[in-house]
Amino acid sequence: MNKRIGARTIALPSRPSLEGFAAYVGKKEKAGPLGEFFTHYDEDTTLSQDSWECAESELQKRAFQLAKSAAGIENGDISLMFGGDLLNQCIASGYATRGSSIPFAGLYGACSTMAESLALASLCVDGGYARRAAAITSSHFCAAERQFRFPLEYGGQRAPASQWTVSGSGCALVGTHDDARVSVGDICFGAVCDLGVCDINNMGCAMAPAAADTLTSYFKDTGTTSADYGAIVTGDLGAIGSPVFLDLCARAGCDIGNHLDCGKMIYDRETQGVYAGGSGCGCSASVLCAYLLPALQRGELCDILFMATGALMSTTSFQQGESIPGVAHLVHLLPPKPRA
Amino acid sequence: MNKRIGARTIALPSRPSLEGFAAYVGKKEKAGPLGEFFTHYDEDTTLSQDSWECAESELQKRAFQLAKSAAGIENGDISLMFGGDLLNQCIASGYATRGSSIPFAGLYGACSTMAESLALASLCVDGGYARRAAAITSSHFCAAERQFRFPLEYGGQRAPASQWTVSGSGCALVGTHDDARVSVGDICFGAVCDLGVCDINNMGCAMAPAAADTLTSYFKDTGTTSADYGAIVTGDLGAIGSPVFLDLCARAGCDIGNHLDCGKMIYDRETQGVYAGGSGCGCSASVLCAYLLPALQRGELCDILFMATGALMSTTSFQQGESIPGVAHLVHLLPPKPRA
Repeated sequence: MNKRIGARTIALPSRPSLEGFAAYVGKKEKAGPLGEFFTHYDEDTTLSQDSWECAESELQKRAFQLAKSAAGIENGDISLMFGGDLLNQCIASGYATRGSSIPFAGLYGACSTMAESLALASLCVDGGYARRAAAITSSHFCAAERQFRFPLEYGGQRAPASQWTVSGSGCALVGTHDDARVSVGDICFGAVCDLGVCDINNMGCAMAPAAADTLTSYFKDTGTTSADYGAIVTGDLGAIGSPVFLDLCARAGCDIGNHLDCGKMIYDRETQGVYAGGSGCGCSASVLCAYLLPALQRGELCDILFMATGALMSTTSFQQGESIPGVAHLVHLLPPKPRA
Repeated sequence: MNKRIGARTIALPSRPSLEGFAAYVGKKEKAGPLGEFFTHYDEDTTLSQDSWECAESELQKRAFQLAKSAAGIENGDISLMFGGDLLNQCIASGYATRGSSIPFAGLYGACSTMAESLALASLCVDGGYARRAAAITSSHFCAAERQFRFPLEYGGQRAPASQWTVSGSGCALVGTHDDARVSVGDICFGAVCDLGVCDINNMGCAMAPAAADTLTSYFKDTGTTSADYGAIVTGDLGAIGSPVFLDLCARAGCDIGNHLDCGKMIYDRETQGVYAGGSGCGCSASVLCAYLLPALQRGELCDILFMATGALMSTTSFQQGESIPGVAHLVHLLPPKPRA
């Protein structure tokens, strides 16, 4: 049975549902504009662990535990887990799932990983390959800073176009369709785009072309426009990448009047000193699992297109003078069916 | 339709086929025992690129090009690509696919990535989510050494239990079933196992428990034993990890008399100075695509269980004193149907 729509879009005819979801964040995220929705957080950025990397793993463990509790299930009920993070060799995810006995497929899509994991988990449930599948990602400001930029102790000056890596994790558990729950309609994996942006402090700009490419491909495949959705949600383009994304869409003939960006939503840029906004795998993951999915579940949001974006460079490729490729994956999320 | 067998195994009822596959390796691999099967290689370890990282990307590009030629297809014929590598943020894969316009789902499974990518590509074709999907991985000795151990210029002494990262890439293109081609029967994603091995120079030992766990789970799910297959092929357990794997299997009641390990096969340990054997994502990928798949295609091998193994640590987790978790994914490969 062909489940393809147009060139890139994949239909999930059974419309898998999200049985449970949860986010776990740090104190800066709790202090931001979405603070009331982040009901689970730790004031201690180390989460009582011995290292920032262990703290990031702990964020995943706690988000996963909360998502399982929300769904009322245990490890043995999960057939397959898709997870990833920004750390070298994705250690936050590998160590978080260690000992769980859940089959684990590790992903690397940089900040696009939440959409990638949710797309693959949904696909596996739709096809009957998993009874229930988990999607999880994380990031931690302190672990990311010392890996990608400077150790915090160095006190490096941040660039004006830079974004603040979110300390947080989001986890969603995908199961078979249930009219009473949020469901996944179709998905669209993105191609790697690179328009030559070389500024490591301006990731939003580097990722915007990929987001525009995936969204316009999806619109073409499905014959829809942004007006057919409650919101077009990008991951972490931030204050500088977002207008570039909207401009690229407009040039391709798609005017987007209902754009939200998790990187712009999670912090107050006026008072929290984050410059261009939030970023990291944990940014879109925590905003999705703490704010967007509950709003969809309550019927406060119509269909959304959740499109997390990732920058696929490393410090090595940057130091070698390479430009920054981006990728964006899209998941179409639908609210529960209204009761008759 | 439920496509699950037992606790972990996933059936692919349509039996997707491998339409094209190819490996591209370096001169040390060409000089090894499988040299006659490595028909595509470069004597120049830089592949005329400016850095080892770019050279690794180039290995992927060449393997991909060769696999497409073997299948007689172009980029536009490929719906989805699964790829990954060992470099931080998987830059070899991200940069290799840049500009191809092929939807790309990045993976990180360390040296297990070839089995992971092949499993997901096959699953997507089986379910009708992709008309044709690509699986690709790579590694490069020089890029891996300076990232994980020491820059080559340092002339560091290698440890006796260490393995030699293969410079190579393998790519397989999965399409719908064809009686005349090698096909994928079922797949089994592994869980992350950690028996506490902390020796960064003995990866084979760290990965062996995951391989034993996945294989014994698969045997339990399918009611088969090693005698039902032509060979049980592990990725890169090497000379030290292999007997540990066989011992763990035996303790679980599974005696394996037909074990092959790509890490043991690719180099001559007597003359090539590789100590415990080959390793890296490119090890199992190049042995699979240059030796195993052609042998299956010619009918010289019966069914094999291809099980690549990965060690999910990083230099950071190692320096923090963490033990090394492993993961192993399994793909059941069947030879073409004999002509009536």
